[in-house]
Amino acid sequence: MRDVAIIGAGMIPFGRRDEDSLMDMLAYASLKALDDAGLGDKSVDAVYVGNMGGGIIQHQTAIASSLVDRLSLLPAAAETIENGPASGGSAVKNGLLAVASGYYDYVLVVGGEKMREVTGWRATDFVATMTHPGAEYPYGITLPGMAGMFTRLYMEKYGVTREHLVTVTLKNQEMGALNPYAHVEMVLSREGIFDSPHSIVNNPPMADPLHLYDACPVSDGAAAIVLCPLDMLKAEKKSLDASKPLVVIAGFGQATDTQTLQEREDPTDLKAVTLAAQKAFEMAKLKPGDIHVAELHDAFTILEIAESEHVGFFKKGEGGKAAMAGKTRLGGQIPINVSGGLKARGHPVGATGVAQVVDIVFQLRHELPKTRQVKNAMNGLTVNFGGFGNNVLAFVLRRVQQ
Amino acid sequence: MRDVAIIGAGMIPFGRRDEDSLMDMLAYASLKALDDAGLGDKSVDAVYVGNMGGGIIQHQTAIASSLVDRLSLLPAAAETIENGPASGGSAVKNGLLAVASGYYDYVLVVGGEKMREVTGWRATDFVATMTHPGAEYPYGITLPGMAGMFTRLYMEKYGVTREHLVTVTLKNQEMGALNPYAHVEMVLSREGIFDSPHSIVNNPPMADPLHLYDACPVSDGAAAIVLCPLDMLKAEKKSLDASKPLVVIAGFGQATDTQTLQEREDPTDLKAVTLAAQKAFEMAKLKPGDIHVAELHDAFTILEIAESEHVGFFKKGEGGKAAMAGKTRLGGQIPINVSGGLKARGHPVGATGVAQVVDIVFQLRHELPKTRQVKNAMNGLTVNFGGFGNNVLAFVLRRVQQ
Repeated sequence: MRDVAIIGAGMIPFGRRDEDSLMDMLAYASLKALDDAGLGDKSVDAVYVGNMGGGIIQHQTAIASSLVDRLSLLPAAAETIENGPASGGSAVKNGLLAVASGYYDYVLVVGGEKMREVTGWRATDFVATMTHPGAEYPYGITLPGMAGMFTRLYMEKYGVTREHLVTVTLKNQEMGALNPYAHVEMVLSREGIFDSPHSIVNNPPMADPLHLYDACPVSDGAAAIVLCPLDMLKAEKKSLDASKPLVVIAGFGQATDTQTLQEREDPTDLKAVTLAAQKAFEMAKLKPGDIHVAELHDAFTILEIAESEHVGFFKKGEGGKAAMAGKTRLGGQIPINVSGGLKARGHPVGATGVAQVVDIVFQLRHELPKTRQVKNAMNGLTVNFGGFGNNVLAFVLRRVQQ
Repeated sequence: MRDVAIIGAGMIPFGRRDEDSLMDMLAYASLKALDDAGLGDKSVDAVYVGNMGGGIIQHQTAIASSLVDRLSLLPAAAETIENGPASGGSAVKNGLLAVASGYYDYVLVVGGEKMREVTGWRATDFVATMTHPGAEYPYGITLPGMAGMFTRLYMEKYGVTREHLVTVTLKNQEMGALNPYAHVEMVLSREGIFDSPHSIVNNPPMADPLHLYDACPVSDGAAAIVLCPLDMLKAEKKSLDASKPLVVIAGFGQATDTQTLQEREDPTDLKAVTLAAQKAFEMAKLKPGDIHVAELHDAFTILEIAESEHVGFFKKGEGGKAAMAGKTRLGGQIPINVSGGLKARGHPVGATGVAQVVDIVFQLRHELPKTRQVKNAMNGLTVNFGGFGNNVLAFVLRRVQQ
């Protein structure tokens, strides 16, 4: 396998983007990443688009082929990758392996989703397309419902409390408010959403024990990266932007689990998260303790806590306490979701896995404002969580000393 | 890049499969390919599913993750690839590059579609999701409509006649009737569909100058292959079925073109077909004349003729005459769509690109009955055509002397 560098990264502000079509957003994010890469006269060989809902929501298929035309990148190969909420991560993975194989040199990976076209029950229905069509959805199971039951089990087994969850909400909304790309700019108060008489009104129960602010919003957005072989980059340094610190994908792992939770021996055990992270660490020859910044898939607050344990940052049952103790804040032991995470940056599903990588690239290049920059970050981790943990991708990114 | 072998191939009969869900069909085809591969205790590292309509027709997403669970292949990585009618070819491509990269050893590629759930205008509407949402579909353009206009131009520029098209229909239906996996088993007569007074009733105009029997049917179906590195196969020969002739993917090419036909300088010029085939031949170090059998994407009869010219089997304007002269029949200069092609085998869109590869594997292994076997076939070509030629994939398969 050839080593693969990320030479361009960009995203557009997530949120409500009523004026933009899905194709507009994919194009805008692509142009930002291409501009950042400074390819000059190099042409893009292939474009990988991560997207979940183009067919269902926009009634459009083969959107990658359309994007290549829109970007005037013809005759570059085009692929649309769909893997539920892990569509973005899967697009990164397929782009990575395509470059690693030696078949392509310059690959653009874009993730995007225009989800605000479906809100309320229609958003829940769209997301539920990833549940089991025979054993789950017909019986009323939705993703928030699954997350609620998972949270209850996790609380009972590991002593996670509502206070732990609220801590994650507050941290991620606080950080999101500092991120110009984040959907949710509102800083919440502990009193407002948790321990005042009004908190039940401000933050009503959604799927007990989860409340409204335990869930990510429904967002529009897109993010993109440009990949190329590390060797080629070294050889052609003069023609690319050599002033930017270099970031490589040092490790990648992916694993699947049963589609339904009830088939798992221990439904609190997110085996696919553990396995995906282990594989990524193994390939990167790093350990969880070597990671300086992480973007975890906090579609629900419980998932940030559970994933922080499953990837090995904390022992089982310690994640909630660690969050309470500030260990996952900027300046803490392992800053998690400094971007605001899915909780505050937003979760346009196909965009998320790519946006996580973009955020880590920004961190490893040390180009963020002080309020958000993890000092001297050299290694970063992303976890993109599909279904309810039935398809998980993890990437380890590394800043290369030049 | 590592050389990649196809060690297993299988498909299920295409047609109306009302009793089977999409997941059933994907699983049945997978099991046939896995059984054919005889993996023994080797485990599958990843599963790539080519599918276009799971979200729109079945309201299901992330179907590859679900399939991995259904097949008890956990924790194998799973990806769903969507590229319109080229979804199957794109799944093969991504599986190919993943194995070529060295990251995975054993990869299952499955293509499938359950299209009979949408017939009539709903089928046309589903297929039209690949047209341009601003410039084509709102103005009434559908895929058959586009094919009709393309045919008219091709007739005017190159002298293709209705008789040429009917020849393709008759050849492919005749061959399909011999293929136990084909959807359409009906042998048509020239008189019945072309030159009798009743032919206008039997074979009514659909999108002038195309008639009903110029188009492929709407089919359910699935097909699958198993890939592994050639070197590993040689090393582990004893543990796999060494009695089967070995087939490798010797070449692969892909190219995109403008999404709308009116933006092409010459709308009769299928540039992406030419480019994809050229790249595949270049990688395989072969020429069109070295190919002994081909599966071309005859969603409409005109496409078989046009593609036979664009890939280099015949000069422009000679494809129709060559078909009339029997050059593309079994025993002719270059047998095309001996399987019956999309025209008669059927075109469950996500399945097609994989089924084409499966059919060529059967040919190169020389395991078909005499009535369908191309004698001593050593090299085969497939062309999978997405959109109206805006994303095309070509594969050159080669039988390896052992």
